Amino acid sequence: MNNNLSSLRVRDIGEQGLLERLQRFCPPDIIGDDAAVLETLPNQSLIVTTDMLVDGVHFSDLTTSPEDAGWRAAAANLSDLAAMGATPVGITVGLGLPGDVTVSWVERLYQGMTECLSKYHVPIVGGDIVRSPIITLAITAFGQANPNFIIRRAIAQVGDAILITGIHGASRAGLELLLNPSIGQNLKTEAKAALITAHQRPNPRLDVLPILWEILESQSKIVRLSEVEVPNLKSKITVAGMDSSDGLADAVLQICRASQVGAVIESSKIPLPSAFEEWLTPEKSLEYALYGGEDFELVLCLPPEPALALVQKLGTGAAIIGTITPGSNVILHQEKAEIPDQVLNLSQGFQHFAQ
Amino acid sequence: MNNNLSSLRVRDIGEQGLLERLQRFCPPDIIGDDAAVLETLPNQSLIVTTDMLVDGVHFSDLTTSPEDAGWRAAAANLSDLAAMGATPVGITVGLGLPGDVTVSWVERLYQGMTECLSKYHVPIVGGDIVRSPIITLAITAFGQANPNFIIRRAIAQVGDAILITGIHGASRAGLELLLNPSIGQNLKTEAKAALITAHQRPNPRLDVLPILWEILESQSKIVRLSEVEVPNLKSKITVAGMDSSDGLADAVLQICRASQVGAVIESSKIPLPSAFEEWLTPEKSLEYALYGGEDFELVLCLPPEPALALVQKLGTGAAIIGTITPGSNVILHQEKAEIPDQVLNLSQGFQHFAQ
Repeated sequence: MNNNLSSLRVRDIGEQGLLERLQRFCPPDIIGDDAAVLETLPNQSLIVTTDMLVDGVHFSDLTTSPEDAGWRAAAANLSDLAAMGATPVGITVGLGLPGDVTVSWVERLYQGMTECLSKYHVPIVGGDIVRSPIITLAITAFGQANPNFIIRRAIAQVGDAILITGIHGASRAGLELLLNPSIGQNLKTEAKAALITAHQRPNPRLDVLPILWEILESQSKIVRLSEVEVPNLKSKITVAGMDSSDGLADAVLQICRASQVGAVIESSKIPLPSAFEEWLTPEKSLEYALYGGEDFELVLCLPPEPALALVQKLGTGAAIIGTITPGSNVILHQEKAEIPDQVLNLSQGFQHFAQ
Repeated sequence: MNNNLSSLRVRDIGEQGLLERLQRFCPPDIIGDDAAVLETLPNQSLIVTTDMLVDGVHFSDLTTSPEDAGWRAAAANLSDLAAMGATPVGITVGLGLPGDVTVSWVERLYQGMTECLSKYHVPIVGGDIVRSPIITLAITAFGQANPNFIIRRAIAQVGDAILITGIHGASRAGLELLLNPSIGQNLKTEAKAALITAHQRPNPRLDVLPILWEILESQSKIVRLSEVEVPNLKSKITVAGMDSSDGLADAVLQICRASQVGAVIESSKIPLPSAFEEWLTPEKSLEYALYGGEDFELVLCLPPEPALALVQKLGTGAAIIGTITPGSNVILHQEKAEIPDQVLNLSQGFQHFAQ
């Protein structure tokens, strides 16, 4: 009998024993039926997204604590909901575990997940724990959205401003600092910590949604029929978008491809972490910002007027970085005349300026 | 370059290539955003269930074709929704795959899943395909239910009839026939095939729900307030229940434990596959029926009058097998006086009659 709690393994208590221990991470009224019952608002669309994460492929104890792996998995799914304009309702967690994983590891994973989820009042509403030769985490998140306000990739329009809700490149820089602790010696301790936190604890931008809806509501023109105000019949402002989890360049390219439009991005307008200035070349900074990925900001395309209002409300980090154009090219425009514009594309990735 | 299509492997076309091939199994309007958008009926509760299945633990090429593994995975999740009284809206599929799995294997898995799903008009609305050392399938199914008609485990009442929607034991018998082809020599070919099909292609009993609701509607007494009929205010008939995926005995025991009641089951009332008579001892038949599992029928507890009406409507296989009683014992009553009653419990499993 092993009395050391931290070395208690999953096989010692079985799936049922583990489920009982993990119930404290779930609302008590959820448990005990074949499925969970959730109340949603009437006349909302159901929004669903799913992710599967495998040990050694998507996370690893070598670079990520179980708490951070849990936080990141939850954050990525909530970010997908935010990217659709959806408010989360709950997530389910499927977990495949080898018998020799410690119970403490699993509890730390759930701790990280629920730390992220509780910030947004999202419950874990269901789950399944099974035996598996490799740690596997399957998350499905579902939310609700007003059908008139769903953010989609394919609805960007020529003339739309391209807005990002925060700085880019921080997550990638944080990863580099974790992988190579010897770099970034000239960075201040707090600056380094902030970049690492950006990588380990990304925040899904669900906070943007109510601000966005308020602006759209106030800027939509109310349609009058025979002098009668019809509040639900407005000239609709559509918002295209997605999150920048696979990189800012990827997000703009995906939106343009889905919407059959082009774009011009002003490289000088992309907000970067302030620490980059004293640490990275402008070239490297731009590479991290465009292709680093996992910043989990929203990339939104909407008319300039509400876009400006949104940037003002969001404050630091939010910016309009370009415009949707006719055609299909996504052009990165450099402020300095001596650097030529470049056409971005999905397959080539970043082309260094040096020729 | 390998031109033999059936030997094309996942690593040859990558996750993106595989996703493109699997899109034909999904509705075309679902694809392309960070999450899927689904329309639900207003004023319905959202019902969610999730399952994770691992190669070698929950399915195996040795005993199950990929089509059957897909069918069974889909059926198990739809059965969980049926057990809650929910109509399915869609499922998501997370798939972890080693690079050497053939593309054909994956397509056959999806073929089996969609064969089952299409019977009930359920779309695959989202998914994720990732690299993994072991084939892993994570399904989340969600449905909608009238909040007044949700079937739960914890609401069985003393005096309720215990109803099962079909025969039990067939799935376990089918599995035995698959594992030991030498047994059941005296069974007719069709009888053998029917038992094997019961195991390989179980049907979630979603068909029961509209019949049940119709009976409840017609038998609920309309409440009159000051001579005015209030259609939504009826004396409510509650239905407790779950599915029998983990065995009939397990289902009755789980319901009784959750509802803090007991039950008496009449062993002679449990409908068995007709082939059992010529093949198995009464003892073995009852063991398969009570503890075999995976019959995916519904076990419902409701007042005798609507229960009788439901059995009549469902026809062959459906039966009232017992009654909910005060106390906490679940007693299996044997028709033959010489065999003593036995108290069933979750931990001991089936006790053979021989003493």
